[in-house]
Formats: sequence, C-alpha cells, structure tokens
Amino acid sequence: MADTASMNVGLEVAAPADLAEYTRQVASRAKQAARQLAMATGGQKNDWLKRSAELIRERSKALIKVNEGDCTAAQAAGLSAALIDRLRLSEPRLEAIARGLEQIAELPEPVGEVFDSTVRPNGLLVTRVRVPLGVVFFVYESRPNVTVDAASLCVKSGNAVILRGGKEARLSNRALADLLIEALGITGLPRDAVQLVDTTDREAIGHFLKLHDQIDVAIPRGGRSLIERVAAEATMPVLKHFDGVCHVYVDAAADLAMAEAILINSKCQRPGVCNAAESLLVHRDVAARFLPQAGKSLRAKGVELRGCERTRAFIPEARPATEEDYRTEYLDLILSVKVVDSLAQAIDHIEIYGSHHTDTIVTNDLSAAREFTGRVDSAAVLVNASTRFNDGGEFGLGAEIGISTDRFHARGPCGLKELTSYKYVVHGTGQVRS
Amino acid sequence: MADTASMNVGLEVAAPADLAEYTRQVASRAKQAARQLAMATGGQKNDWLKRSAELIRERSKALIKVNEGDCTAAQAAGLSAALIDRLRLSEPRLEAIARGLEQIAELPEPVGEVFDSTVRPNGLLVTRVRVPLGVVFFVYESRPNVTVDAASLCVKSGNAVILRGGKEARLSNRALADLLIEALGITGLPRDAVQLVDTTDREAIGHFLKLHDQIDVAIPRGGRSLIERVAAEATMPVLKHFDGVCHVYVDAAADLAMAEAILINSKCQRPGVCNAAESLLVHRDVAARFLPQAGKSLRAKGVELRGCERTRAFIPEARPATEEDYRTEYLDLILSVKVVDSLAQAIDHIEIYGSHHTDTIVTNDLSAAREFTGRVDSAAVLVNASTRFNDGGEFGLGAEIGISTDRFHARGPCGLKELTSYKYVVHGTGQVRS
Repeated sequence: MADTASMNVGLEVAAPADLAEYTRQVASRAKQAARQLAMATGGQKNDWLKRSAELIRERSKALIKVNEGDCTAAQAAGLSAALIDRLRLSEPRLEAIARGLEQIAELPEPVGEVFDSTVRPNGLLVTRVRVPLGVVFFVYESRPNVTVDAASLCVKSGNAVILRGGKEARLSNRALADLLIEALGITGLPRDAVQLVDTTDREAIGHFLKLHDQIDVAIPRGGRSLIERVAAEATMPVLKHFDGVCHVYVDAAADLAMAEAILINSKCQRPGVCNAAESLLVHRDVAARFLPQAGKSLRAKGVELRGCERTRAFIPEARPATEEDYRTEYLDLILSVKVVDSLAQAIDHIEIYGSHHTDTIVTNDLSAAREFTGRVDSAAVLVNASTRFNDGGEFGLGAEIGISTDRFHARGPCGLKELTSYKYVVHGTGQVRS
Repeated sequence: MADTASMNVGLEVAAPADLAEYTRQVASRAKQAARQLAMATGGQKNDWLKRSAELIRERSKALIKVNEGDCTAAQAAGLSAALIDRLRLSEPRLEAIARGLEQIAELPEPVGEVFDSTVRPNGLLVTRVRVPLGVVFFVYESRPNVTVDAASLCVKSGNAVILRGGKEARLSNRALADLLIEALGITGLPRDAVQLVDTTDREAIGHFLKLHDQIDVAIPRGGRSLIERVAAEATMPVLKHFDGVCHVYVDAAADLAMAEAILINSKCQRPGVCNAAESLLVHRDVAARFLPQAGKSLRAKGVELRGCERTRAFIPEARPATEEDYRTEYLDLILSVKVVDSLAQAIDHIEIYGSHHTDTIVTNDLSAAREFTGRVDSAAVLVNASTRFNDGGEFGLGAEIGISTDRFHARGPCGLKELTSYKYVVHGTGQVRS
C-alpha cells in the first residue's frame, strides 16, 4: 500500500536548487530549536498543544478546503477509493485530531523526570533525569493526521521534529504544519521546533540521513521499502517498525470459547494494521473441537482460510497453505492456520515464521503461559488477550509514534518516554575519588 | 594511543580463506547460543563466572607465560614501555580479574526482571520484562583484562558475545577466551556464548558489521578512528564512547577550597582516562582568589597550564591557550583554563568546546547548580564532585562495558541493564478490543 500511496500525484514541489544546503539549514535550525525547547516548561508545551487544537477547530472549513485539493489530485492520479478515504479530512476527523492534541496535553510531563536515584556510600546522590533525544527526523507516507500526531508527541517530549510527509497529502500537511508553527509562535516556543520539508523530492531524505551531527534519530513510518531504505542509509539511530506477522496460539489447555473470541478479535477487528493476527496455531489435542466451530465463525466474518493438511481435515473449505503463507502479513481478511503437536512446536513456528511483533497464547495452563511468555521473543507477548492490544493507547502510554520492532532503545509501542534519553545528574558535597 | 597500540606486532594470524563465510558462521553460532543463553538461570551464569575465576587463579602461571609472548613481541616491535605495561599480566592483575568475575556474579540478575507494570481499566496487566539484547559484537584495542570484563558482562546479561581484540594482546586474549569457553562447557552453558575472532585481519570487522540479522549491537572500545570506523560501517545499532573533554567550572559562589580539591582530583587522579578533566572554567569574580593558589597546586602536581589572557594575568607560567586547546582531550597532565564572565558563558563554552561527556560545577548557589545541571547537555553533570565519578562502579552499576556518549538506548556508564532490551508481557482473562 505504501508504494501505491506514494505514487506521483498532484503538483510536484520544485526541489530547492541545492538540496544538500537546504537540508543542512533545516537540520541546523532544528538543532537550535531543540536546545531552546529542551528548557521549555510543560506548561508552555501544553499551551501550544491546546492552542493548536483551538486553531484546528477554528479553521476546520479552510483545512477541509485545502485537503480537497489533495483528494482531487489523488482521484486524478487514479488512487483507490480506500486510499483517498485515508487521505480525506472531515469535521469529525479534524475534531478527533484536536482532541488528540488535548489528550497529549493531559499526559504527564516527561522531560526533567527523575526516574532513578541512588545514594552512594560516599554520600553522592546519583540521579537519572529524563531529557529529550534532540532532533527527530520523521518520514511518513500516511494520512495527514500523522503530521499532527508526530509533531505533538515530539514537541511534548522536548524534541524538535523535521517532518517529511508523503506527496499525496502535501497540501494538507503544509496547512496543518503551518498552523502548528503559528501556534508555536503564539505560545513563545521556537517556531523551528516543527518544520515540514518543503520538497517531496525523495533525494532529500538521503541528505537528511547523512546529518548525524544535527539529527538524533530517524523514524520512518510506512511501507517496508521506505523503512528499509531509511535503515540502510541512516547515519544516526533509527526507530523502525516493520511488519507484524502476529500469531494466536490455542493451547491444549485453552478455554475454547475464549480462544474463539480472541481469535476473531485479533483477526477481524481491524485487519489492515500491524497488530492484527495473520496466523493461527492450534494444539492437536483441541483441533477437532476448536477448528470446525472457529472456521465457521471466521468464514462468517468473511475471512479466507489457508491451512495445513490437518487443518483442512477439520475445515474442508480452507485452501492449502504454502510456506510463504506462514510468512505473510496479509493486512487483509486472510488467515493462515496450522495444527501443531506441542507448545514447543508452536514456539518454534513463531520463531521461524513470525516477525517478533505480537503473539498471544490462549491457555489456562500456568506453565504453558510461562513458557510461552519466556521463550517467544516478540515486542509484545500476551496471555489470554487479543493481539490488537499491542498499542500505545491500550498499554497506557497515552499515544504512540509507532510500534518498534527493534530491540535497541525502545521496543513495542513508543510514546513520550520512548522519545527521550536521560542524563546522570549527580549532587555531591565536595567528594573526590580516591 | 589506540593507533600506536594497534601497530602490527607479533605473529599475524592467517586470515580464514573466506572471511565473509567465516564471519557469517561465527555470527550464526552466536545467535544460536544467544537463544539458549536467554533462557539460562542466573544461577547457571553465576556458576560460570565463579568457575572462570577459579580457573584463572589455578592457571595464573600458564597465563602469565602466554602473556610473556605478547609482551616480547611488543618489545620487539618497539612499543612504548607504558603500552607494554598495559599489556602485561601479573599475579595481582590476574587476581583482580578473578575478583572482578566474582563481583559480577554477586550483582542482581538482570534478565527477567519485571521493571514496570500497569493494570489497565479493562483488567489487562501490562508488564515490561527485561530481556537480553541478543548478540554483542565487541571490538576493542586495549588490555587483555577487557576480554574477561566484556565477556562476563555480556553473558551475565544473557547476551552472546563476539570478541575482536587487538593484535598486540592476541595470545593472551586467546588463552583467556579459551578458559572462559571451557568454563561455559563445564557449567552447561552454550560454548558459543563467548567467541574470540580468530583473525586480527581488520577486514573481518567490516564483514561482521554487515550482519545485522545476526548481531544486535556493535560496541567499539578504543581510539577515535576505530569508533568512527565502526559507526560508519555498522548496519546494526552501535554503542559508542567517544572522547571526554570534561570541564570543571568554578562558580562565583564556589567554596574555593572544595573547588581546588575537586579540580586536582578531576585532573590528576588518573589523567589518562575519559572522565579526567581537560579544561577549567573560572568565574571572573573569583579568578583573582582562586587561580594563583590553584595554579600553584596544579603545577606542583606536574600539570602544564594553557590559559586565556585573563588566566595568564594570575598564572604567568601558563602558556597561551589556542582555540584547539579548548577542544583537546589531552589524556595527560595538561589543563586548558579560561576565565568566564558568567555562568551562562561557562555553559555556552561547554556546549561549544565540550564533548557532552562529564562536566562539574563547584558552587553553593542553588539556582546556579540548577541552571548548570539543566542546561549542560552531557552524559553526566555533577555538582560539587569530581568528574572522575562518571563510572559504572562509582555510580553503583557494579561494572561497566563503557561510557556511552550516545543519547540513544543508553547514556553514560553502561552496565548489565544497559546490555538488555525488554519485551511487553501482558496477562489477560479473555480481553478483546472494542
């Protein structure tokens, strides 16, 4: 979808004459702004969030009008109705964006939090204090609301952000970013704390990715090819979120009614997202009791099933699954199914075919739950709950900029705290080292 | 120093015929071992640490004999006496290495710790559990004890480690690694949890740095050129520790006797390390009272001073400081000195010339201390204490694999916890998302 969504639609923005110089200037302004923003109070940042929400409500009609330009261009370029729907801003959607800003204002201030402290035998008080990462380079391909979500999370966590959105939302992104920047000015924060890259020239991304002296982290959000490109070219750390090939494993000791509810929810509640289930594993001891009924329910929801031979003995309508099926993130109403001989086989299957994103076990067996959560190496491992819960809001982070499939720095949903670093602040009374 | 220490000394180990294949095999074995090691108990890992300590004591004579080979080769190659001294193993040094292993065994088990939890309104218990990073590629240039330090920290934190030491310590590193690997076998842990790269061919590093599917983090420890090379070539995250251009700032409200003690300790207690002070900033209001006496004490300790004009008015023996002096990590008994007009000027100077490593203020003024700790953007910012405290042991981490000057993942001293990641483990009772 990402590649389609990035098709060349609408007017191309002329690239600045010297991309290298342009990107350096943008990054250098961001770094200046980040230093000021790091010292801003939570009150100032929350004023900005609330003022931005007000401006979005006040100017909803104008924003919708601008957005129509993007939608018309997308239609002319032949984008699918689904993609155009994702692109479209409406009064309810703008209201949701405004409410999102207000919700982020209500979250606790992350910067300056002393989250760890030790008093050493010599009396030194050693503390760790949360500080912003600095400058975030955020590259995205999706809906215009992401412009506001990303900017609000970055600024609330004290980071300056360089936004590089997809060209299909170019006009909408510009209007929303201008509004956020205006609100920065009104509330006395550095206007360069939010910058939207003025060109959709893809080469600009490469230039930004070289500037590790100015940019502290690159966060790509979009299709696999975008993320792989950013990961390959970046000279600074990257926070990636790759595919979710997520599993529901129905254990021998599962409550089968619970298993069915969790399976249906994991697969069908929103099939197009990364934490939706793509594969079902069923212990052979319960396959005969579980699969016929579960298969019926799934098919009633319009889910196409692709199963192993043992699966197809219980669900004749299922097509045969290939090796490739078990590795595939369908993002659609399709589910691969496999009957396994044991918990160990389920765990091995998840290790081989999964993407270390989100996996759940349904069981009432304590040792099975313990083994599954211990040995499955995924960002989120659940017991008796839907995979769809792997989400910043659902986990209590308030909001998220993405779900990291990395192990470094942050794993799973990334909210305000995951956009911070820390420093050691040490208070002494004249201590020297002997 | 790093470049000198890496001079071609001793016998060159023949590179395996196919470096790409060799490095892939090493990394693949490490990844297998990491999966097993992640499930090992703290007891097993501690047994390995203690057994390794015993073996080091039992075989100290043999280890010293092997080490003599490295030292003789280093002499023949004309390495300085100081470098050869760093290389040399002795009974007391081996005893210190053995004790280090036992101390790491006494540290709390990091893997499996539930360090964060929330109960959500729907009853979901959301926890974060500490897990190993996976495979660490550790490249170092220094003394043979680092082989043991790095392996012990990596394995205790559940990580498999690929060690690539400097060629000057080749024989000693091999003997120590063999001993650690033997102890892995004895205690039932995977022998591939510790691997020492069999070639000192520098090209091998480049091959390892491409293997981001197998290696989770690269940690270079050595001179700037090594670290820059690893950072530039790595396709996986890198934990870097760059120069320490560390400052002591003597504020207008400083207790001048305390300031002198902290300054002398920061500069002279061990001048060759990254957290030693390289630059002194003095508020103009106390320059006349502080500098003559401090200069005298420093010179009595053999410290060469390089100062600004105002400094030289109070310490005529000081040589004029150049711009370059203020950026230099001397790692020697040399100190740059500057008189500043204000706290703000001191902070700006540290931002421009410092390396964001370790900086201390000496003051009794609460608001000055607060401003300094808030605005100085360094891994460790201290008040009324020596810069030399920025150290894993001194901060209570038990031991450290290095001091990170990065902002991502870990900043400052990196101990066992900094060698871990986490996963979300979520316990439900059948919850689905609505």
